[in-house]
Amino acid sequence: MQATMFYGPEDVRWEHRPDPEIELPTDAVVRVTAACVCGSDLWGFRGYRPPGEPRPVGHEFVGVVEETGAGVSTVKPGDFVIAPFVISDNTCVNCRNGIQTSCLHGQGWGALDPDGRQIDGGQGEYVRVPLADGTLVATPEQPGKELIPGLLSLSDVLGTGHHAALAAGVGPGRTVAVVGDGAVGLCAVLAAVRLGAERVIACSSHADRQQVATGFGATDIVAERGDEAAAVVRDLLGDTGADCVLECVGTEASMDQAMATVRPGGRIGFVGVPVGGAQVRIGQMFSRNVAVGGGVAPVRAYLDELLPEVLDGRLDPSPVFDLELPMAQVAEAYRAMHERRSIKTLLWP
Amino acid sequence: MQATMFYGPEDVRWEHRPDPEIELPTDAVVRVTAACVCGSDLWGFRGYRPPGEPRPVGHEFVGVVEETGAGVSTVKPGDFVIAPFVISDNTCVNCRNGIQTSCLHGQGWGALDPDGRQIDGGQGEYVRVPLADGTLVATPEQPGKELIPGLLSLSDVLGTGHHAALAAGVGPGRTVAVVGDGAVGLCAVLAAVRLGAERVIACSSHADRQQVATGFGATDIVAERGDEAAAVVRDLLGDTGADCVLECVGTEASMDQAMATVRPGGRIGFVGVPVGGAQVRIGQMFSRNVAVGGGVAPVRAYLDELLPEVLDGRLDPSPVFDLELPMAQVAEAYRAMHERRSIKTLLWP
Repeated sequence: MQATMFYGPEDVRWEHRPDPEIELPTDAVVRVTAACVCGSDLWGFRGYRPPGEPRPVGHEFVGVVEETGAGVSTVKPGDFVIAPFVISDNTCVNCRNGIQTSCLHGQGWGALDPDGRQIDGGQGEYVRVPLADGTLVATPEQPGKELIPGLLSLSDVLGTGHHAALAAGVGPGRTVAVVGDGAVGLCAVLAAVRLGAERVIACSSHADRQQVATGFGATDIVAERGDEAAAVVRDLLGDTGADCVLECVGTEASMDQAMATVRPGGRIGFVGVPVGGAQVRIGQMFSRNVAVGGGVAPVRAYLDELLPEVLDGRLDPSPVFDLELPMAQVAEAYRAMHERRSIKTLLWP
Repeated sequence: MQATMFYGPEDVRWEHRPDPEIELPTDAVVRVTAACVCGSDLWGFRGYRPPGEPRPVGHEFVGVVEETGAGVSTVKPGDFVIAPFVISDNTCVNCRNGIQTSCLHGQGWGALDPDGRQIDGGQGEYVRVPLADGTLVATPEQPGKELIPGLLSLSDVLGTGHHAALAAGVGPGRTVAVVGDGAVGLCAVLAAVRLGAERVIACSSHADRQQVATGFGATDIVAERGDEAAAVVRDLLGDTGADCVLECVGTEASMDQAMATVRPGGRIGFVGVPVGGAQVRIGQMFSRNVAVGGGVAPVRAYLDELLPEVLDGRLDPSPVFDLELPMAQVAEAYRAMHERRSIKTLLWP
C-alpha cells in the first residue's frame, strides 16, 4: 500500500509500505476512505518536536472494515467505521471512567505497540487497527459521501471541541469565549452553541474562519488578540469576563489570553496540546478562583452522543474542511495548513 | 482597645490601639467575642512573606455589633455576627457570581482601604467592619458559648474546606482524598462527608489529627507522604486514583502529591495559599485530563447553607480548635501553631 511517513520538519512523504495484516486476534484491517491532517501533526512538521526515526503518521481517519481477527465482535467486514485518535480497549477502569485517552492498554497511531509491533498511521490507504472492539465505532449503515467530512471530524476535532466545552462547564445561560480559530476552536464554537450557551464569542482575525464561526452560531466575533481581546470580551458581556473560556491553541499566549478573558469563578477548558512554554498560572487561578480542566480529549466517549446528530444532519462540522486533496498530495496538505491557506485539509485515497 | 500587631517573623504583639469608630455610613463596630489564628497567618510569622510595616493582623472573628453607620440595614447593635475573612459588598457582579473574594469593592482585614484608612485586624477586642451589610452575617439569636467555635470556623476554615470539596466535584458515590491535616484539611474531610462522598481518605501522620479526621467521618487514614501516599490511596481504592483530591496545604510537595493521587479525569480542589513554588503541572493535567479548581474561598457565599447546620449541631467543626487562650497570649497562640502543638488556636477576649 501507499501511506504517509513523517521524516522531519517540513518533510512528509507518500511512500510504499507493507500491506497491513491481522497480527493479533483483536486486530481489524480498515481500508481508509478519508483521512486528514491535525493541527498537532504540524508541531512535528514545524520542528517543535524532535523528529526521531521516520514513522507512519496521521491519527484521524474513517474507512471500511476489510478483515477482523478472531477476537473481534463489535465490527465486521463491510462496516463503515470511525477511528478515534487514540487506540483504547474501552473496558479498563480509565475507559469506564470515560477517559479512553488514558486507557491502561492505550496505544498510538504510528507508534510501536508494547511488544514492539509497528502500528500504522491514519494517513494511508490501509490501517491495521489494534483493539478494534474498543477503538472502532461503526455507523448503522453506509453513509453517503456528503457525510464523510462530518464523520471524519468525530475522530478528533468535533469531539475535542466538545471536550473543551464540557471541561469549561458550558451550558444554558452561560457566556463563552473561544480562543483559537483552528478546526478545534471552530468545533468548540459549534459544541458550545449545541450545549445551549447564551453567548458564544469566537476570537478570530481571519475572515474565512470568522465566517465558519458565524455559520456555527457564534454570536460575536472578536478580531483583537491577547489582553486587548479579553477587554473586548468584557465590554461585550458587560461583566468581569466570560463564564467559560475554551482554549484551543496550546501556546503560552493563548493560555494567558484565556486567563485574561475568564471571569473570577469561571472555568477554562483547554484542549490545545501545551507547547512552547504554555503554563497555567497558579497565582491567578487561586486569587480569582479560575478552574482549569480539559486535556487530550477522550473523543471515543462522545461518539455515542454526537454520531447520531452528525448522521441526521443536526450537527454539521464539515465546513472546517476547506481543502480536499488526493492522499498522494499529503505533503501539500501539510504545507497548506502550515501556511494557514487551509483550516483543515481532508485527504481522499 | 488592645489588639494584635504583626511586626515580622516570630514577632506578634498584643498592643494598645485606637478604639474603632464609625468612619463611613457603611461601617459597623463589632466587639469581638472570639478570634483565631489562621494557617496563612503563619506564612508571615515564618518569614515566607516580606514583613513590611507593622500592621494589625487576624481575619477570622465573631462578635456582637456595638454600633452601625447610618447606611447599614442588615445588622443592628446587639446582633451576634460572623465576619468572613474577606470584606465584600455582596452586591457587585463578582459577589452575585458567588465569588465575594473577588468583590469589586473588596478589602482586607488589617490592610488600608482604597482611601488609605486603616482597617482593623480580627485578633483584637474591637473591629471597625467596612461594608457591614455585605460582610457580616447575623445569627437569628444569641448563640450559647458552646457554639462559638463552630460559628468561628464559618469565618474561614469550614467554608474553605467546603470550597475545596465543591471545586473538586465531591458528591455522592465519589472517592475523595484530602491532602493536608491542618484545620482546613480536617474541615475538608467534614465537608466531603457532608456532601455524601462514598470514601473519604485523610492523609495525616499525626495521631491527634487522625483522630479528628476519623471523628469527622474519614473512612481511611493514610500516614504515608508524597508518592508513597498516592500509591496507598490507589491500593485502597483499587483504582487508578481518587475521583476528587482536596489540596489543603499550598506547597509544591502537596500539589504534586495531589496530582499523583488523582485519577485520570479526576479533579483537584485546591485551597492552600500557593507558596514556595507550588505549581500546577500543565503537562500532567493535559495528558491525564486532571482538572484543577478552587482558590481563595468565598466563604460568604456558603454561610446561608452552612450556618443553620452549625447552629442546630448537625455540623460540628469545633474539634479543629484544640487550644484556647486569652487573646493577650496571642504570641503563644502563633507559636503553638507554628510548632504544631496546636491544630488551630482559639482566642477569647
